[in-house]
Amino acid sequence: MCGIVAAVAQRDIAPILIAGLKALEYRGYDSAGMAIADGGEIRRVRAKGKVREMEALYDADPVPGGTGIAHTRWATHGVPSEKNAHPHVQGRIAIVHNGIIENHATLREALKAKGRTFLSETDTEVMGAVIDEHVQSGKSLRQAVTAAVRELEGAYAIAVMSLDEPERIVGARRGCPLLVGIGIGEHFLGSDAQALIKVTNRMMYLEEDDVVEITRDTVQVFGLDGTPVDRTAHESEISADSVERGEYRHYMQKEIFEQPRAVADTLEGRIGPHGVLPNIFGIDADPILDKTRGIHVVACGTSYHAGMVAKYWIEQLARIPVVVEVASEYRYRDVVVPEDTLFVAVSQSGETADTLAAMRESRRRGYLATFAICNVPESSVVRESDLRLMTRAGPEIGVASTKAFTTQLTAFALLALDLGRRRGLNEADYLQHCKELQSLPRYIENALKTEPQILAIADHFIAKQHALFLGRGAQFPVALEGSLKLKEISYIHAEAYPAGELKHGPLALVDENMPIVAVAPNGPLLDKLKSNLQEVRARGGELIVFADERAEMEDGTEHVAMVRVDGGGDLIAPAVFTIPMQLLAYHVAVQRGTDVDQPRNLAKSVTVE
Amino acid sequence: MCGIVAAVAQRDIAPILIAGLKALEYRGYDSAGMAIADGGEIRRVRAKGKVREMEALYDADPVPGGTGIAHTRWATHGVPSEKNAHPHVQGRIAIVHNGIIENHATLREALKAKGRTFLSETDTEVMGAVIDEHVQSGKSLRQAVTAAVRELEGAYAIAVMSLDEPERIVGARRGCPLLVGIGIGEHFLGSDAQALIKVTNRMMYLEEDDVVEITRDTVQVFGLDGTPVDRTAHESEISADSVERGEYRHYMQKEIFEQPRAVADTLEGRIGPHGVLPNIFGIDADPILDKTRGIHVVACGTSYHAGMVAKYWIEQLARIPVVVEVASEYRYRDVVVPEDTLFVAVSQSGETADTLAAMRESRRRGYLATFAICNVPESSVVRESDLRLMTRAGPEIGVASTKAFTTQLTAFALLALDLGRRRGLNEADYLQHCKELQSLPRYIENALKTEPQILAIADHFIAKQHALFLGRGAQFPVALEGSLKLKEISYIHAEAYPAGELKHGPLALVDENMPIVAVAPNGPLLDKLKSNLQEVRARGGELIVFADERAEMEDGTEHVAMVRVDGGGDLIAPAVFTIPMQLLAYHVAVQRGTDVDQPRNLAKSVTVE
Repeated sequence: MCGIVAAVAQRDIAPILIAGLKALEYRGYDSAGMAIADGGEIRRVRAKGKVREMEALYDADPVPGGTGIAHTRWATHGVPSEKNAHPHVQGRIAIVHNGIIENHATLREALKAKGRTFLSETDTEVMGAVIDEHVQSGKSLRQAVTAAVRELEGAYAIAVMSLDEPERIVGARRGCPLLVGIGIGEHFLGSDAQALIKVTNRMMYLEEDDVVEITRDTVQVFGLDGTPVDRTAHESEISADSVERGEYRHYMQKEIFEQPRAVADTLEGRIGPHGVLPNIFGIDADPILDKTRGIHVVACGTSYHAGMVAKYWIEQLARIPVVVEVASEYRYRDVVVPEDTLFVAVSQSGETADTLAAMRESRRRGYLATFAICNVPESSVVRESDLRLMTRAGPEIGVASTKAFTTQLTAFALLALDLGRRRGLNEADYLQHCKELQSLPRYIENALKTEPQILAIADHFIAKQHALFLGRGAQFPVALEGSLKLKEISYIHAEAYPAGELKHGPLALVDENMPIVAVAPNGPLLDKLKSNLQEVRARGGELIVFADERAEMEDGTEHVAMVRVDGGGDLIAPAVFTIPMQLLAYHVAVQRGTDVDQPRNLAKSVTVE
Repeated sequence: MCGIVAAVAQRDIAPILIAGLKALEYRGYDSAGMAIADGGEIRRVRAKGKVREMEALYDADPVPGGTGIAHTRWATHGVPSEKNAHPHVQGRIAIVHNGIIENHATLREALKAKGRTFLSETDTEVMGAVIDEHVQSGKSLRQAVTAAVRELEGAYAIAVMSLDEPERIVGARRGCPLLVGIGIGEHFLGSDAQALIKVTNRMMYLEEDDVVEITRDTVQVFGLDGTPVDRTAHESEISADSVERGEYRHYMQKEIFEQPRAVADTLEGRIGPHGVLPNIFGIDADPILDKTRGIHVVACGTSYHAGMVAKYWIEQLARIPVVVEVASEYRYRDVVVPEDTLFVAVSQSGETADTLAAMRESRRRGYLATFAICNVPESSVVRESDLRLMTRAGPEIGVASTKAFTTQLTAFALLALDLGRRRGLNEADYLQHCKELQSLPRYIENALKTEPQILAIADHFIAKQHALFLGRGAQFPVALEGSLKLKEISYIHAEAYPAGELKHGPLALVDENMPIVAVAPNGPLLDKLKSNLQEVRARGGELIVFADERAEMEDGTEHVAMVRVDGGGDLIAPAVFTIPMQLLAYHVAVQRGTDVDQPRNLAKSVTVE
């Protein structure tokens, strides 16, 4: 995580750096800082907390200057504090860094032995010292950065400036995103396009192990061996106003209510009256999907939950076995890959470090092909995959993912149906499911109408410290996702279980202080779920049940709050039941007064491992 | 869950029923009760709470009589209370029941319409009424029970007596265990052999849909169509004194310290200097294991965690893909079964309802064969499987499973090594791993020596309401198991995550009130885990680290309690690191003053769905 902005311009660049950091705050907001070359010195402004804290310091004592680097931090090494805030200065250089350096402890000891002192606990300051050593030995800033990164293990995107070359910034990336913004007589570096869109729409994406040098008039990219490499510039499709909050109180609320539109956009031009349209996964998709006999889905967090739902769908509709695995585990495990297995990576940002690394690792493991489900067309995951289906959620600003999840489910449903047809799903069922999927935006629209009821239920949670979420079948991942939302933004310790596992241990936790949230769609598992809920009620637990309109459940029982939802058919019900879960987490968090869009400790696009 | 005892004898049987219930208390202890035919009436003694509460009532006002049924309850329908305690009486019959009747609500309404009144909220009383209806219509008790169970949906073991036939008891089973104890001039029914071992060692196991009638002198078994069926009696191998607590404060503590012996017993005669011995999985095993190309492991709770560890082992050593699934989910999902897949069921008791039902369901799904890992040789899971490996943990009385888990891991390790050899694992690695496995009892013995350190750490938890457990790789299931133990017996809401997933959401929960327990074995993932732990420390979280002796970690840092464990090699480390987790849960629970061996809401052998 962490966000980087840097600029070399003729004008004072502090306001540009601050605006860029604000756009990057989703990547971390433990502390913020910037360093600007002002005459013969490098001046820093740093503050614990959000960018606006640092901005207030700057406003009180502005720093002029046209060369600068800036950073908003998500703490990995060292507590959030001004001392640990970037930029870090060592000798004649200043550095901002996104990522984790793994051999920092060894390097720190070696440098201390040489007489270096360190003012922070960060791995970044160690990196700065390594670069400064090379600068002091007579290298140019670019040579010094190149030499330094060859000594470092880990992942990084960095921007570095030097007192000796005050109108120049050098950047480098490995495993974390960095791009160049190309202006008129000015150049920028940023962690993403949104950080720079207000000053330019011409972007150049850097690749792994690139080292870049920018001045006002030039951009030059080099490999780690020092030879120049060519990188093409593109016009970005992001618009500057797609990220405004409008009438909503929080981005998260806006994004929850955007879901009918986001899902409809994701379906548009991809499914018609006769089924899934041809070539929507890329023009090379047909032979690959025809051949697919197994699927491995790899993702993190919310995207992992989307993959878990997809497992139910694909196994049922296409009879293809699906394994879903957390990316950070997948990478380091000696995975068995049966013949003709498709690797599917799921990531909202397409820059999630673990997912990206897993995808790269998969190249060595003999998959049929790689397939990306992603929300950012220019992202690394998309660029490096053979096949892809873009979700069209639009920019997601709230750190707790909502519309990204339901659009990922939509993309997976398209894939499951398409594979089903290829693998002998009968035509009538296929067309019925396609019709059902097309109705998803309407069912989501309806599910959003439960908001007033959920607002009332949210009251129950204000004083609670725990909750259990229960689901069965494809609704178990929905329960997982619901509990994750509540965790992320309300800090309530919510945990999900497949309902049948309750009596194998977690039931010991149930008493009157432990509310239970259950998803009860209509279907063959309803009676089993009702038995599980009886077990909870017999122990005094308070129940909140999201029940399908058609499910035969007693309303109005004591200690049971029932919210009725029309789940549509089996295929779309997981996406539909996600909506009240999101609303519940949102309203509980609002009532508890947490920072809904930027919850503590988290960051959006997790670009460190 | 729930436990049943019944007896027809010439002597007063109340003391026999009470002793039997005490042996069955691991199956539930919400309430207890018995009904005894005393002259022309059926007299009941019932009490909320444990068997000793009911015993006190009986002692104050003893009931004579030689025919009786008794029950210790784990509440499924209706809160724990005297009113809901078994036996239930309807009309002229009394009944005790283990299981869940799914169509009880419909039946209850129909019977109410006929003028029946119900005094409890239980499904059991409804069952009693259905039987009584048939008795009132002129049927014998056996005919009435047979007719009734044909109208019922769900799972049950029952024992029923009638005022009209005071020297006779009828039992029936479907999905829940029931066996007959054969004495001299007296007969018994019980949920397991331990309940009856003090009065007889001759046992007759009933099968699905059997109806049994016992008198002092006769035992007759019938099918649901009323025709007699033959069931053989066996001498039980259980000894009456293997279930005493000895010097230990709790059964759980005793069972934790028995692990070196239990694991050694599980290895004995199964592995030698040249590797895994032949035929240990059954004489039919060779062709099946040679052919195995995929494995599905199905289990619940702790046994499920053992399966998750096995997945790592089998995939690594034998390159056979393994899918591990919760039994309650597996049963109701449309699972894809690739050719030559082996079904593995894991259950301590061999009577776990969901696991047993999943195994039966698997028969229809085209597996190569079924394989059981189980601790009870006479159990349904063992009797119905093609291949098996018995764990030799001995009786496990503590509801929170300990030695069952490590012996299941031992059994899985034997299977993984044997499959590895069949699938091309090189001889040197194979022999090295076999040697490592043989050393497991010694490493567990050593790990038990951490008890004094852990006793000190347990202090940290007394006032906590939450904890997070972190692991990576094969230690992730160990973290899951550690968190489950803490949940079960200390009622602390502990949850486990693969360490890399922390930053994808749960990190929001971390503050100074959330202790983090991490397993840090030596190995390639250590540096990644250290980075994850830095993320936690940066947010004020208190760390308890179980670290391998060889792992390079800083001891003595503030807010970090480090316990060093010699994990042995990669293969056995998950079993070794389980030990401190068990000790931690145990000592936290003792210090919190909970009922360690019989934690609230739970029961041991989960024979309801």
